[in-house]
Amino acid sequence: MFRQTTPDTQSYPVTERNRVKRLHERGSYDRAAVHAILDASLLCHVAYVIDGQPYCTPTIFWREGEMLYWHGSSASRMLRHLKQGTPASLTVSHLDGLVLARAGFNHSANYRSAMCFGVARIIDDPQEKAEAIRGVVDRFYPGRSSTLRPVTTQEVKATTVIGMHIDEASAKVRAKGVGDNEEDYGHPVWAGVIPVRTIVGEPQVCPRLVDGVAPPDLFSLYQPGETLDQALSEAQSIYEREATA
Amino acid sequence: MFRQTTPDTQSYPVTERNRVKRLHERGSYDRAAVHAILDASLLCHVAYVIDGQPYCTPTIFWREGEMLYWHGSSASRMLRHLKQGTPASLTVSHLDGLVLARAGFNHSANYRSAMCFGVARIIDDPQEKAEAIRGVVDRFYPGRSSTLRPVTTQEVKATTVIGMHIDEASAKVRAKGVGDNEEDYGHPVWAGVIPVRTIVGEPQVCPRLVDGVAPPDLFSLYQPGETLDQALSEAQSIYEREATA
Repeated sequence: MFRQTTPDTQSYPVTERNRVKRLHERGSYDRAAVHAILDASLLCHVAYVIDGQPYCTPTIFWREGEMLYWHGSSASRMLRHLKQGTPASLTVSHLDGLVLARAGFNHSANYRSAMCFGVARIIDDPQEKAEAIRGVVDRFYPGRSSTLRPVTTQEVKATTVIGMHIDEASAKVRAKGVGDNEEDYGHPVWAGVIPVRTIVGEPQVCPRLVDGVAPPDLFSLYQPGETLDQALSEAQSIYEREATA
Repeated sequence: MFRQTTPDTQSYPVTERNRVKRLHERGSYDRAAVHAILDASLLCHVAYVIDGQPYCTPTIFWREGEMLYWHGSSASRMLRHLKQGTPASLTVSHLDGLVLARAGFNHSANYRSAMCFGVARIIDDPQEKAEAIRGVVDRFYPGRSSTLRPVTTQEVKATTVIGMHIDEASAKVRAKGVGDNEEDYGHPVWAGVIPVRTIVGEPQVCPRLVDGVAPPDLFSLYQPGETLDQALSEAQSIYEREATA
């Protein structure tokens, strides 16, 4: 990996920006806790501001140490705006369950979310950009980039890579059963948790696949029925091991 | 429903703010397309700005006509900020598949996303607030609010409801196989789509449930193995039917 930063401390600094205010007992500033939530996802939401208007854009992202990357074509409104470097917030959320309580007020959801703050910048350095173009493939599908039709100069030019160092971050997790008021437990209504999970399905082969091409090894990660967050977390571990090997 | 607005037109207006710029062939401004993506989700991400800093907050939301609602305690930083009414962007995304192409450049994801723009305001009107407090339960669990321990004045006071009229919106969808360059189809590497879906698991009953309480009818919606987006879409349909009955 191009920019494998070694964190100075185990936790992110806590400032007015990332301090968890609502239900703060669910919050954490631990780097490992934040990374675990990030690494279990392919999709994030990036918030940025243009002329006072907030935008919230879903995009594929990946992590290299304390750097987060995402990209798109040079045409993107968000990316054009980010060219100068702009404050951004990148959030990842996993929904784990619906919590049905005895009082409307205590209905909730089980979830894991990580909110990261930093300055998003276009990656101009050719080596970092080339690494990132490989990274977006290999982070999800370890070893795959070397098996592909090689990247062309034209494609590198048409790709804008955005990078953001995680300056501050927080994780927030709810992972428990119903929390009703003590006096409400006698109320005769069903209460409990309906768990939800995102799972991998059966691969759909491209109908124009060259004869005799075998399914790649990475299918051992993305087994049908496996949870996606588990598969993505394992892919990140393999990617990191291979980078440091 | 308190504020069932009847849209004047089938489509949202297209402005510089919501026009889909990147891969615009995937975009749509159709109200029904936007609503379908919103109604299939419990979770959204709201972007807002404080002192130039963008924040991206995951939260439970629900839709009533052209109004979107979400809420939290009065302590929330976001909600305090929104008190005066502030431009916001609310985005919902569903990840449907990982797309593995023959060139790194053509790797992608299948997804459905909706981005909504408007001014977020605290709902002060007592009737609209009361309706919203019922709505957040009944929209997900039709008919459930009347079976619960009644809402207290204290709870109404401690709940802040935020509402945003959808002034502009766009939907963006990718739902197809691999799109490689014509000259790359002969490259001998596996290509295809790994579909993913979020499914409902077996309900986990609260250990303090009153003896003899039966599972509610709504479990016919949230059947184990059912996709969450289907269950949530059906719940919204029932909720809307009951509101107009």
